[in-house]
Amino acid sequence: MTTSTPGRDFILTLDCPDRPGIVHAVTEFLVAHDANIVQCQQFDDRQNGRFFMRMHLESLNSAYGKDALIQGFGRTAEAYSMNWRLVDAAERTRTLILVSKYEHCLNDLLFRRRLGTLDIDVPLVVSNHPDAAGMAAAHGVEFRHIPVTPDGKEEAEAELLRLVDDLRIDLVVLARYMQILSPELCKSLEGRAINIHHSFLPSFKGAGPYGQAHARGVKLIGATAHYVTPDLDEGPIIEQDVARVDHSMDPARLAAIGRDVESQVLARAVRWHCASRVLLNHGRTVVFG
Amino acid sequence: MTTSTPGRDFILTLDCPDRPGIVHAVTEFLVAHDANIVQCQQFDDRQNGRFFMRMHLESLNSAYGKDALIQGFGRTAEAYSMNWRLVDAAERTRTLILVSKYEHCLNDLLFRRRLGTLDIDVPLVVSNHPDAAGMAAAHGVEFRHIPVTPDGKEEAEAELLRLVDDLRIDLVVLARYMQILSPELCKSLEGRAINIHHSFLPSFKGAGPYGQAHARGVKLIGATAHYVTPDLDEGPIIEQDVARVDHSMDPARLAAIGRDVESQVLARAVRWHCASRVLLNHGRTVVFG
Amino acid sequence: MTTSTPGRDFILTLDCPDRPGIVHAVTEFLVAHDANIVQCQQFDDRQNGRFFMRMHLESLNSAYGKDALIQGFGRTAEAYSMNWRLVDAAERTRTLILVSKYEHCLNDLLFRRRLGTLDIDVPLVVSNHPDAAGMAAAHGVEFRHIPVTPDGKEEAEAELLRLVDDLRIDLVVLARYMQILSPELCKSLEGRAINIHHSFLPSFKGAGPYGQAHARGVKLIGATAHYVTPDLDEGPIIEQDVARVDHSMDPARLAAIGRDVESQVLARAVRWHCASRVLLNHGRTVVFG
Amino acid sequence: MTTSTPGRDFILTLDCPDRPGIVHAVTEFLVAHDANIVQCQQFDDRQNGRFFMRMHLESLNSAYGKDALIQGFGRTAEAYSMNWRLVDAAERTRTLILVSKYEHCLNDLLFRRRLGTLDIDVPLVVSNHPDAAGMAAAHGVEFRHIPVTPDGKEEAEAELLRLVDDLRIDLVVLARYMQILSPELCKSLEGRAINIHHSFLPSFKGAGPYGQAHARGVKLIGATAHYVTPDLDEGPIIEQDVARVDHSMDPARLAAIGRDVESQVLARAVRWHCASRVLLNHGRTVVFG
Repeated sequence: MTTSTPGRDFILTLDCPDRPGIVHAVTEFLVAHDANIVQCQQFDDRQNGRFFMRMHLESLNSAYGKDALIQGFGRTAEAYSMNWRLVDAAERTRTLILVSKYEHCLNDLLFRRRLGTLDIDVPLVVSNHPDAAGMAAAHGVEFRHIPVTPDGKEEAEAELLRLVDDLRIDLVVLARYMQILSPELCKSLEGRAINIHHSFLPSFKGAGPYGQAHARGVKLIGATAHYVTPDLDEGPIIEQDVARVDHSMDPARLAAIGRDVESQVLARAVRWHCASRVLLNHGRTVVFG
Repeated sequence: MTTSTPGRDFILTLDCPDRPGIVHAVTEFLVAHDANIVQCQQFDDRQNGRFFMRMHLESLNSAYGKDALIQGFGRTAEAYSMNWRLVDAAERTRTLILVSKYEHCLNDLLFRRRLGTLDIDVPLVVSNHPDAAGMAAAHGVEFRHIPVTPDGKEEAEAELLRLVDDLRIDLVVLARYMQILSPELCKSLEGRAINIHHSFLPSFKGAGPYGQAHARGVKLIGATAHYVTPDLDEGPIIEQDVARVDHSMDPARLAAIGRDVESQVLARAVRWHCASRVLLNHGRTVVFG
Repeated sequence: MTTSTPGRDFILTLDCPDRPGIVHAVTEFLVAHDANIVQCQQFDDRQNGRFFMRMHLESLNSAYGKDALIQGFGRTAEAYSMNWRLVDAAERTRTLILVSKYEHCLNDLLFRRRLGTLDIDVPLVVSNHPDAAGMAAAHGVEFRHIPVTPDGKEEAEAELLRLVDDLRIDLVVLARYMQILSPELCKSLEGRAINIHHSFLPSFKGAGPYGQAHARGVKLIGATAHYVTPDLDEGPIIEQDVARVDHSMDPARLAAIGRDVESQVLARAVRWHCASRVLLNHGRTVVFG
Repeated sequence: MTTSTPGRDFILTLDCPDRPGIVHAVTEFLVAHDANIVQCQQFDDRQNGRFFMRMHLESLNSAYGKDALIQGFGRTAEAYSMNWRLVDAAERTRTLILVSKYEHCLNDLLFRRRLGTLDIDVPLVVSNHPDAAGMAAAHGVEFRHIPVTPDGKEEAEAELLRLVDDLRIDLVVLARYMQILSPELCKSLEGRAINIHHSFLPSFKGAGPYGQAHARGVKLIGATAHYVTPDLDEGPIIEQDVARVDHSMDPARLAAIGRDVESQVLARAVRWHCASRVLLNHGRTVVFG
């Protein structure tokens, strides 16, 4: 949690084929642009020969703002065929939250945003039910009720996508949104949509995981935050956690305990994503926590 | 951990259809036999209308030893159609440990036995490999190498079962025994064989769970101790636990971290089983921890 | 989480000198009053020779309501010199929440109340700052701002005590109330006031625990929920938990992580207290979780 | 856990006043010596303006061995007034283990060494009691019994120090060694002696922490691995962990549960120290886990 100044602190993330000299080339660029390293994390995936890096840098020379740095880094990036991104560390992620009837994750996210421990702007909360309108209002956030009827689903998704574009949304969070998105929508949101699944994946995929967990008699229940992909519950996992349960607890109790885990896991995943700490690596994630 | 005196401390476990008066009937029996309750745990499975109880009682009258109490309780047990057991709390469980090449669970169990935190006698360690002979010797425990060849499996299992009978074994522990037992052997050991599976079941059943976990990119790995049943990895779960992992760890590192979880989970499961703290409830367990 | 019906489900808690026959005497009473045991937990403190029990019972005979049961149990209680209590399991605990400027625990408690996972009524939220008024309003809860000035403290406490009486408050929760209560107030609230301390007691008593934790370089930070007693941070501990931290985190980050632990620990402590699951035992607690 | 080749894989650790260009200077050196970065971790302590780094590098040019690299890096190190160290990543740490009567940590360390998950050589185990001789023998490790009598302490410490020198010991591990070392000995072992304390420091310093924990009624017990310093239990903390306990457990049970935590915490601390992952920072540690 290093405080960031707009136009002065930047986050550079990149991944590229591993080979000698990468870090040297990047620091070369830093020196040439009067930039200093605040924090740097690296991961060398030797199995796939790919290198990942996240660098928090501060510009010591006002002449080099975001655009100058982006332009300046282009040559280096090309030389090493990097997949990269440079963002202002103080920029807040424009986040659209999707919710159904369970509001615990929504409440948690909106409260952290208010506390300032989650660097997100929330231009809109969307739900297929009207229930969450009150909570959105209490947090001073716009709310839109978009019902999803059996044969109105396509239309609903179209409206959703329209909102994502109109509001320049960076991230869509499915905070217990109990609707299955179409493969098309998943595709178009790939890499910028996070879902919380209320089980420790790959255990108990699909519906009613707490009921499944109770039936199987597990001694721990969990939650999993992952990027949304067309194949359900198979997206890259960002974060997971568990809580201990016992034989005396019925599915309702498991669900109550699970809500805490879901809220925490989702909040961590969103925080890391918004801080550019999550990089994709062949269906898995590199998390520079 | 209440110390127990032979012939004075007893554990009574029972389960029966739930109805009023059960505890009263049991305490009636206690009063009539000058016995006192040291510890009592109960669980009322309202879903299935079944009642479970574990009672640690002490006999205040030497006239009432184990046999007298067992005989005396018969009538009560019958009246409530109880499935029950009364054992001397100081009796040590005669345990046969099965192991292959990984010795961490074996080392852990034998060391806890030596410390006295695990109330087991280990008349024999059996392995399909000779490797563990040294460790058994170091702990002063008999070791038998029973190779399992593709077409010698039946014979090997027959010998194993013979040993279980000859040595009056109460519990068989599969401490990373990398052989699949035949349905027949599983049946004949039902309720008295505990296996440690190196994953958080039902995730990653079958072989190579750490490789599967790495491929899926989970953020926690786990282990599961369960009773052995004919259908593999589906037996009633006694205990589970997890450890945190990250993207930088290869399958070998996951396995190394997992070994600690496996040892601890198996040790807890064995300890609870040997203290009559685990009751079966339709494919699940009631654990009076 | 067994659902309770008013006038039918009751919780009996008791502690008394240990001796044979206690449970039998209690079940005698149950049989005589057509009551059934739903759940029963016991603890025999052999060190101090004291017996503790919590029993969830259901009355199968409408003739025996709360008053009848209380009257009926009197004789048994006297015979065993029990310290006891019998309450309607469906009764909600009237809770007054004290808060200063940090609202995370308040938000957490009020949200759980709304979810129905916390069986409390909150007639009033009191703060020495006006900040929390909005959140109370959002949850439809009364808010009272009682400033505490250096020489107005006595008066403020008097008003607080008056509110506790007028509103028939059962429990006072100090949800990060940054004021030290006078010994007199602590005394008069003994056993019915819970405080959340933002450290793993007995580590880092007093002010600025996260700063202390950072200075000491601990690898885990924690929170402790305890009953309020005249000697600060020394009250009987109800619940504790921790979260992992590392060298890269400054005190502000520790505090942010700590907030989650504080909220969860306090919520569990309040839930257990309100379910009569916490009994006092010489400066320590027996928690029938 | 990246496998290392002798003479090819090296670990460079350094700390120095923070200023721009450090990483660039280091990578300059790497490029000039045909070395590649396998892993790099950094920490910028903005509060104290100090920079810490651990780099796992591989030499791609056999002309540059350990000595050449050390000599080559000297100039860079000087220019940035670095406190630094470069070691062969495959070198095993020569470790002397001190133990008294509790053998669980000793057993754990020796077993991990055998598994190869702990890169240590153990030329000698020393104890003030003869008890551990058998376990050392079972692991094929030398054992020396050095009694510590009230007035023979000085002599015993002298012998210990002699052994440390004669055996070229890199690290001394106090694996539940129940003797207080003299300030002189602590001084001369500073930075190369790790102790496991059986409590979650700073809670319950000194003797009988489990008794203290039971008396206070805490709900979690812990263990702390720290560097030995003249002021007892105040050394820089390397690692800590906890386990959940409850009211039903007596001090003996707490100690039994604690043993597992102690073993794991100590093993992690030793592993990190031996992998040059622990750097000192004003009485605290930077752990590049």
